[in-house]
Amino acid sequence: MLLHLSTWHDVEAYLDRSRGIILPIGSTEQHGPTGLIGTDAICADAIARRVGEIADAIVAPPIQVGMALHHTAFPGSISLRPSTMILMIRDYLTSLAKAGFRKFFFINGHGGNVATLKAAFSETYAHLADIGIPESHLVHCQVSNWYMCSSVYQLAKQLYGDQEGSHATPSEVALTQYLYPESIKHTLLDEGVSRDRQIYGSIDFRRRYPDGRMGSNPALATPEHGQQFYELAVKDLTDAYLKFLAAA
Amino acid sequence: MLLHLSTWHDVEAYLDRSRGIILPIGSTEQHGPTGLIGTDAICADAIARRVGEIADAIVAPPIQVGMALHHTAFPGSISLRPSTMILMIRDYLTSLAKAGFRKFFFINGHGGNVATLKAAFSETYAHLADIGIPESHLVHCQVSNWYMCSSVYQLAKQLYGDQEGSHATPSEVALTQYLYPESIKHTLLDEGVSRDRQIYGSIDFRRRYPDGRMGSNPALATPEHGQQFYELAVKDLTDAYLKFLAAA
Amino acid sequence: MLLHLSTWHDVEAYLDRSRGIILPIGSTEQHGPTGLIGTDAICADAIARRVGEIADAIVAPPIQVGMALHHTAFPGSISLRPSTMILMIRDYLTSLAKAGFRKFFFINGHGGNVATLKAAFSETYAHLADIGIPESHLVHCQVSNWYMCSSVYQLAKQLYGDQEGSHATPSEVALTQYLYPESIKHTLLDEGVSRDRQIYGSIDFRRRYPDGRMGSNPALATPEHGQQFYELAVKDLTDAYLKFLAAA
Amino acid sequence: MLLHLSTWHDVEAYLDRSRGIILPIGSTEQHGPTGLIGTDAICADAIARRVGEIADAIVAPPIQVGMALHHTAFPGSISLRPSTMILMIRDYLTSLAKAGFRKFFFINGHGGNVATLKAAFSETYAHLADIGIPESHLVHCQVSNWYMCSSVYQLAKQLYGDQEGSHATPSEVALTQYLYPESIKHTLLDEGVSRDRQIYGSIDFRRRYPDGRMGSNPALATPEHGQQFYELAVKDLTDAYLKFLAAA
Amino acid sequence: MLLHLSTWHDVEAYLDRSRGIILPIGSTEQHGPTGLIGTDAICADAIARRVGEIADAIVAPPIQVGMALHHTAFPGSISLRPSTMILMIRDYLTSLAKAGFRKFFFINGHGGNVATLKAAFSETYAHLADIGIPESHLVHCQVSNWYMCSSVYQLAKQLYGDQEGSHATPSEVALTQYLYPESIKHTLLDEGVSRDRQIYGSIDFRRRYPDGRMGSNPALATPEHGQQFYELAVKDLTDAYLKFLAAA
Amino acid sequence: MLLHLSTWHDVEAYLDRSRGIILPIGSTEQHGPTGLIGTDAICADAIARRVGEIADAIVAPPIQVGMALHHTAFPGSISLRPSTMILMIRDYLTSLAKAGFRKFFFINGHGGNVATLKAAFSETYAHLADIGIPESHLVHCQVSNWYMCSSVYQLAKQLYGDQEGSHATPSEVALTQYLYPESIKHTLLDEGVSRDRQIYGSIDFRRRYPDGRMGSNPALATPEHGQQFYELAVKDLTDAYLKFLAAA
Ligand code: NI
Ligand code: NI
Ligand code: NI
Ligand code: NI
Ligand code: NI
Ligand code: NI
Repeated sequence: MLLHLSTWHDVEAYLDRSRGIILPIGSTEQHGPTGLIGTDAICADAIARRVGEIADAIVAPPIQVGMALHHTAFPGSISLRPSTMILMIRDYLTSLAKAGFRKFFFINGHGGNVATLKAAFSETYAHLADIGIPESHLVHCQVSNWYMCSSVYQLAKQLYGDQEGSHATPSEVALTQYLYPESIKHTLLDEGVSRDRQIYGSIDFRRRYPDGRMGSNPALATPEHGQQFYELAVKDLTDAYLKFLAAA
Repeated sequence: MLLHLSTWHDVEAYLDRSRGIILPIGSTEQHGPTGLIGTDAICADAIARRVGEIADAIVAPPIQVGMALHHTAFPGSISLRPSTMILMIRDYLTSLAKAGFRKFFFINGHGGNVATLKAAFSETYAHLADIGIPESHLVHCQVSNWYMCSSVYQLAKQLYGDQEGSHATPSEVALTQYLYPESIKHTLLDEGVSRDRQIYGSIDFRRRYPDGRMGSNPALATPEHGQQFYELAVKDLTDAYLKFLAAA
Repeated sequence: MLLHLSTWHDVEAYLDRSRGIILPIGSTEQHGPTGLIGTDAICADAIARRVGEIADAIVAPPIQVGMALHHTAFPGSISLRPSTMILMIRDYLTSLAKAGFRKFFFINGHGGNVATLKAAFSETYAHLADIGIPESHLVHCQVSNWYMCSSVYQLAKQLYGDQEGSHATPSEVALTQYLYPESIKHTLLDEGVSRDRQIYGSIDFRRRYPDGRMGSNPALATPEHGQQFYELAVKDLTDAYLKFLAAA
Repeated sequence: MLLHLSTWHDVEAYLDRSRGIILPIGSTEQHGPTGLIGTDAICADAIARRVGEIADAIVAPPIQVGMALHHTAFPGSISLRPSTMILMIRDYLTSLAKAGFRKFFFINGHGGNVATLKAAFSETYAHLADIGIPESHLVHCQVSNWYMCSSVYQLAKQLYGDQEGSHATPSEVALTQYLYPESIKHTLLDEGVSRDRQIYGSIDFRRRYPDGRMGSNPALATPEHGQQFYELAVKDLTDAYLKFLAAA
Repeated sequence: MLLHLSTWHDVEAYLDRSRGIILPIGSTEQHGPTGLIGTDAICADAIARRVGEIADAIVAPPIQVGMALHHTAFPGSISLRPSTMILMIRDYLTSLAKAGFRKFFFINGHGGNVATLKAAFSETYAHLADIGIPESHLVHCQVSNWYMCSSVYQLAKQLYGDQEGSHATPSEVALTQYLYPESIKHTLLDEGVSRDRQIYGSIDFRRRYPDGRMGSNPALATPEHGQQFYELAVKDLTDAYLKFLAAA
Repeated sequence: MLLHLSTWHDVEAYLDRSRGIILPIGSTEQHGPTGLIGTDAICADAIARRVGEIADAIVAPPIQVGMALHHTAFPGSISLRPSTMILMIRDYLTSLAKAGFRKFFFINGHGGNVATLKAAFSETYAHLADIGIPESHLVHCQVSNWYMCSSVYQLAKQLYGDQEGSHATPSEVALTQYLYPESIKHTLLDEGVSRDRQIYGSIDFRRRYPDGRMGSNPALATPEHGQQFYELAVKDLTDAYLKFLAAA
């Protein structure tokens, strides 16, 4: 059930049977010479929608822009500062908590979001208590990264070995190829790619990773792989969501 | 050209020929018993995409959540506080301005965003100067509301007269019906609807407008109307964008 | 009844008969070669005082500095950032709401304040609810621009036609001439004046409007006109205040 | 020279001969059963205007609302939070520093402002350096409390002894009586008044000082005293301003 | 009783007998050629610990970094902005007030902290009321500067006369010598030292006070003096704390 | 070399040979019935001091209060909000970066700090670029958790198996026992302890972990273990610091 295609009557009815909501979150950032700028949001959103269908859960519209300051020396990247993102997440969750939602399950497509998201959860728990939301202690937030699902991780390792890398990876590129076959990009990639994994500021990042990739070879990606990743992630995250929902 | 389906190389090439970008912005808020919660983002996004195609402009992913605090007594609504939204817009525009963008054209689907957006533009102009963005005085922002295009406005008046109302209007519902025919909702609407137009806090709003509509009769909407609105808005906003881009 | 010339006992007694307050708000900004930097605050304050007398309403001391970032390339202009102004307005209204005020009527002299004021109202409604102000849903805010009163607007059109312009207008200059005849400035104005109406950042503004005027010819102003504007604005805004106060 | 009655041309000319500006700052807060809510702003503004005349200095419009949170349990008091006031002062000084002002002399009427003002000065020095204001190290700020001028202090002691107290004092009431003789209030004051001097939160303040006075007997005030205080303060603060302006 | 060497059970038991806590606060800033960068925190902490022992009070771990922006042109200085420090103090006191603490006694070693601390107290009183802390009106904060204790002040005057100065003073250096005899520094000091007392921005500060001292001659300090200062401060502040605790 | 026992001359000399600094960071939070509230700061500080000695690195005074909102339902815990902590860290690093430091190595004792610290690093990189710090792209930050050093982790596993748990662990308690043998607490612990690992808000936390422990048995701790942990952590973190310092 997609929030943006529902009415408030639909949501009211939903809240009678569930207090959970799935929030896909991605990023708008460079993904190397062939990866789509929307990769992280596209992947998180597609997986979240399917999880929502299977698990009968409301799915919020995707958060398209997250914490990607380190990518902003590449044109087309957009980032919130962590301090802004904390306020944004706090506002989202406050709106939803006032309506009765209590279990917030973020399906995340971007590693750079994790720290700020977790900080935002802490900020929000305290905020909701401060403003006197009833039973605010029942509010639980969780972030699950689709690319960290063990089945996904293992398949990536098996298919790509150490060419998976850590940004603009063949696994995420494959998933976007499956979802947007008409947007597959063909560019010759430099053979050498930095094996570094350090992330500091944006200028440093671009010096360290001149074409935007971090140790990855996205040329290995295929739409068929993408479908496999999609199905594995959906399965694992459906289980994770249901477990999260059921937990005290 | 959709930013999220582009690579950073694509954006780099685009910046050689244009400094403009279109940013669709909507809201996630109740739209009466039959209107979709995502109405404002859906409309803005669809129109923006087509304007981008015609005008050869990059289109950012839609901003799905805006300033809708007054709707938050209805479940499913999500809102930023104005102070948060100002920071969010500032961060978006800072990221893009650092990359070379100078002309920011917001296609807006939600009246409640306008004041905060304009405040955010002022905040951003000063911020970009403070952090020393080169030629920051060339940064121009504009917000255009699709539903205020004169052709759109006139058609709405002609089709619906004073049943257009000011929230959950038949024109915006029609546009979502055209775009998502499978999500058309059929609910009997109360005959009486408040003719009030005042907007204060969220509790007050729900007392004033118990089913969420403000003076509107969305039952008049049809997908065919929606297509007409879409085409009119696209034409007017393409002209508006090109004029904005060309202006000193 | 002027707040600053009252005691707290006076205010306590007032609150037994009314929950309304009038807040004049202006700006401290250039008004062209002959306009006073305090024009907007002077006009708003003078009108508000008289409205307060007629309507038996408390009038707060004028807010002298508002959102005028675009004027800050001209010396003598002072501006808040929108984010600061939102906090300032929130703090004002929170103080007053804690004391029992519920109806906040801003008489505004500066177009640049409107967006930020409206954003501040939204922010404040939510804030007052969050901190548990009793019956916070009864808090209503309204901004009325004296220069937009229909009688004022029509007189300006009749007296000055398109030489009214949109900043450093003869109407506002006339009003300050009526109020401060000893401060009437006589300077030869350039004949040409930009007909542009765009407002972006401060450097851009000064390039676009080199002497500070926007399409106006303040040389047409006279103190007698000023008196007329004053009386019309007072009448219209007294009606508007009483209507606002009476409304549910 | 009053900023609000000047044009930007006047200010431009002034900046050729001086980089100093006087900023009167008061408060909008209860001043006991007979003191005016605007006392602190009224006093600071009147003194500042006269100092400006004598010293040929520009005088900004008065800051009417300051840090008076502890008074907000009495109706009619308005306060900024310290965090808001710091931003407000920072914005004021940033606007003026961009135009070339370097010496900011605050004439203050309210003890509760001092700590926050000083904090704001520190914040502003760092901010101006961060945004690259030229020669920002020449920016100097000073706050002078009119009631702390030694001549004023001594006269108050001589006239009122320990009945001067520390809030709603006869000296400040006298000054407002001199300035606004038509607003002199006659109310029988309780004989007993707390000799306490502690200031904590607003509820605590009202319990501690039930009628708003802190150890003072404002019934001793006369307009003639007020004139004496006015003249002493003007003289001392003119000297102080000129010394501040001349200092390296 | 040191908070950091206690368990939460210990604190729970303590709260049954007392609602007071002592918070030492210093700074991390240059103290001239021979003064330790941690001087202010070292002094405040040592004194606070002993006061806590005598008065049976919990002592929080020292706040090592305060408001020292004016010292930041000397390497090794660390400062919060006032706006940050206000939030930090607010967060500290909010945590402790939720647990039941009501009397917050800051033992301060740095003049530059005072204004911001006082601003923070005001901010916090309002915040605690806003979030509904029970009996928040009983929350009292006080800052006591050890170097302003009258016995300390007199001894410094007697020992050093006007060579005490106002920063990197022999009295505070003496106290650190008593506490850290192994860290006594021997450097020849310039004979001349500025008698100025003005403090503005950091660049200005370093120009005005090139070696970091303000009118002081720390070469006069001895560990024996330090012990005397320590004992006097402990005595005076123990009395002050107990008086503060007992006061309504 | 301890920053607080150094002079600014010492730091100036140090900066000629190194741009690195070690910042110990802990927390002030409950650590179960027998663990010290200062455990995390105590451990981080002790290890950092020794690493600094071996590696000839400056060590900042410990950050005693971090992000521990989830512990604040236990008395004695003090926490910053994440949004405050980000500003605090940004201010620390800005002060130090202005002085020439470029490599910031945090030795951390508290898992709850990690997310917010990482968010703060991102915020700071962007901030330093915005304010024009020279060569700000050379600023690198790293957080290393002493308890996650592989040698430490393995020893804890070997000594305690799954009784190590995740909060108030025998390893951290052992380390404080080694450092503060006089503060060893003897309390009978409940046999059952939750094996849960979820962390949400503070009320939820206390319900989930009634005595504050998370799956741990700190009764297994001994001072001798503590010494082993200390030595292992010092060795690993010295290596890590030197590697960090040397890296491009
Ligand atoms: Ni990605
Ligand atoms: Ni809509
Ligand atoms: Ni005007
Ligand atoms: Ni006063
Ligand atoms: Ni000191
Ligand atoms: Ni710990």
